[in-house]
Amino acid sequence: MEETNKNQEGKHTRRSFLQRSAMAGAGVMLGSKMEAFAADNVNNNLDLTDMTDFTKNIKTKGYAATDESGKLSPFEFERRPVGDDDILIDIKFASICHSDIHQEKGHWGKQVYPQVPGHEIVGIVAAVGKNVTKFKVGDRAGVGCMVDSCMECNSCTHGEEHLCDKGQTVFTYGYPSQAEPTGITQGGYSNKIVVRDHFAVHIPQHISFEEAVPLLCAGITTYSPLMRAQFKVGDKVGVAGIGGLGHLAVKLAVSKGAEVYAFTTSPDKVADIKSFGAKEVIVVDKDFKNLQAYRKKLDYMISTIPYQFNVAPYVSCVKPFGTFTFVGMPEGFNINVSNIALASSRVNFNSSLIGGIPETQEVVHYCADNGVRPQIQVIKANQINDAWDKVVNKEARYRYVIDAATF
Amino acid sequence: MEETNKNQEGKHTRRSFLQRSAMAGAGVMLGSKMEAFAADNVNNNLDLTDMTDFTKNIKTKGYAATDESGKLSPFEFERRPVGDDDILIDIKFASICHSDIHQEKGHWGKQVYPQVPGHEIVGIVAAVGKNVTKFKVGDRAGVGCMVDSCMECNSCTHGEEHLCDKGQTVFTYGYPSQAEPTGITQGGYSNKIVVRDHFAVHIPQHISFEEAVPLLCAGITTYSPLMRAQFKVGDKVGVAGIGGLGHLAVKLAVSKGAEVYAFTTSPDKVADIKSFGAKEVIVVDKDFKNLQAYRKKLDYMISTIPYQFNVAPYVSCVKPFGTFTFVGMPEGFNINVSNIALASSRVNFNSSLIGGIPETQEVVHYCADNGVRPQIQVIKANQINDAWDKVVNKEARYRYVIDAATF
Repeated sequence: MEETNKNQEGKHTRRSFLQRSAMAGAGVMLGSKMEAFAADNVNNNLDLTDMTDFTKNIKTKGYAATDESGKLSPFEFERRPVGDDDILIDIKFASICHSDIHQEKGHWGKQVYPQVPGHEIVGIVAAVGKNVTKFKVGDRAGVGCMVDSCMECNSCTHGEEHLCDKGQTVFTYGYPSQAEPTGITQGGYSNKIVVRDHFAVHIPQHISFEEAVPLLCAGITTYSPLMRAQFKVGDKVGVAGIGGLGHLAVKLAVSKGAEVYAFTTSPDKVADIKSFGAKEVIVVDKDFKNLQAYRKKLDYMISTIPYQFNVAPYVSCVKPFGTFTFVGMPEGFNINVSNIALASSRVNFNSSLIGGIPETQEVVHYCADNGVRPQIQVIKANQINDAWDKVVNKEARYRYVIDAATF
Repeated sequence: MEETNKNQEGKHTRRSFLQRSAMAGAGVMLGSKMEAFAADNVNNNLDLTDMTDFTKNIKTKGYAATDESGKLSPFEFERRPVGDDDILIDIKFASICHSDIHQEKGHWGKQVYPQVPGHEIVGIVAAVGKNVTKFKVGDRAGVGCMVDSCMECNSCTHGEEHLCDKGQTVFTYGYPSQAEPTGITQGGYSNKIVVRDHFAVHIPQHISFEEAVPLLCAGITTYSPLMRAQFKVGDKVGVAGIGGLGHLAVKLAVSKGAEVYAFTTSPDKVADIKSFGAKEVIVVDKDFKNLQAYRKKLDYMISTIPYQFNVAPYVSCVKPFGTFTFVGMPEGFNINVSNIALASSRVNFNSSLIGGIPETQEVVHYCADNGVRPQIQVIKANQINDAWDKVVNKEARYRYVIDAATF
């Protein structure tokens, strides 16, 4: 897969080179980056068929939801031209997050359709706007859950762009955007994306594209609260819900030295989870009886369960004055907690939403450098609908990654 | 009122003395305590009419709910005999907590009736069991929300009896109890109570009974989380819901040096609340628009609102990584929080349930010593139903205290 990947990168890098040549002087920055590009990317087989004009809308192919059915179909659309602060990424892989399904099914509110989901995106920079210094054409880049924000407020200037004080965080898909020809941002289940440079991160060479792609949401969403928890080596960390996010939470916490207790409702995941380094795997029963043995045992717990559930039995596993973080985003965004159970536990309860761009870059580097890799299954575009059903039915092991060459 | 109070204490103290004399050698401890008692309490007018046998059930008069109507009526019943570790308290005052109303109306689950509510109780010790060293007859004593626990577990032996690890905390009323003739514990809206000595606290002489009584629940319930918050002098502390608990939270936080921001829905409370020392009083509008000016401003916030409400606008007033504590106990004990709002706020959310016995004693001493006094309205037993309606209608200013002599 890695080999295939490299080949694909090579092809697109070459195409990008040509695109830049064709566009020289047209507002998209080429100039001094040419040399660097040429040095990094030896191009023997130029592809002369792609003559994209980056100052015009970018023709894109993807898969979109057209209603709340949860079924996607092929969709051709246009993205905005590459602006002065933008980069165009030729997408290589996009992965499937449970949030994609929630949003397209309208679980978080009414949506505008057709809408292309996907906020775990990696690919190769195909063009850069004239102000862009962060990337050059040919760079490996990733995009996560957001593509813009005010960039002026206290949060945006301190690495918390996802929590823009002005409420101007623009999420990757389904978000109103006058700049986009479809009127909304369109996500990563597609072959190209235009994004403000700041909102892309570098993907180092020593992690494959398809293994890096889940880090853009699942990785940062679990890494950020785990780091904030400041657990010490040997501390007992619980992870509830071992899917796309949860299995990465287990691997990250193990890698950071925690003694990890994984809580799952899927008995057939036990062997996998132990192989991820968990000390114990608890198959949660319907009445939560087998959670009682873990009462007040954990220093910290993170739940990635993406639906409404009985939170209290999990919270009670955390030591008094410990912290429980909720990162799953259930239907309606509502958490229902028993006040008396929370009071009895004396646990601090919080929620966490992805993470900022610097920390997203950090988790990509951390995983690349420390051998933390998601478990993935690469699929073709025409397998997306089947994959969505499997995610809902808890059959994913553990992240579906779509090969963007199949759009 | 203070004068009346002293007279009442005097009378009951004398009666207690006689009771002890009558019962000498009957299992209720008199022995060496006699001298201390005699020294503390000069008795010139012995009341020879009360010849209660403490080894038998204790005849008691009170007000009870007989159904979920929320209407109380006079009720005569018996309490258990005074056991070796028990004390009998001649109740002087009991105050009205919103929780009394919730529980008797069945908001927290089905109840056994007739049930006498009340978990803010003060009076004079009328008898002590043979093992009792904490109190002597004639002492001023208070009882709060609990009357027993296992007393062996880690929580019970570390001042957290309300959170007994064995789940054996016995709450003051409506709790199954084989020892009690009615089969359940019966609360403070009555003229006598038998309670394990450990679960009563001392009421110092320099605070009146009627001003001390709300401290047994409202005081400890707000004091405990405020102390746990460890705010510094000058820190901005928010208090949401300025009723029986909230007005004490304002006074306690002011007394401890906080800059207090009080949030109320009652415009006519503003002058009062300013007189309690609040820096600002915010009259919350229906759309929470005037809360926006306080976004991320507070170091800590406590909500005493005793019903379901939109938590998110309040939580957003707390600085990122600050703490929001929920002490109100709404119907069904359920808190509904927007996960996304909680995530955006980055606030730690917790709930708090009263406090342990040592801390209950601490808040009584703190208030007695530092001039922190609740605002009270003393009523007679036959005014309880009217007072309950006023509590529900937010007309209480701020705690109704029942004169137990009127039962």
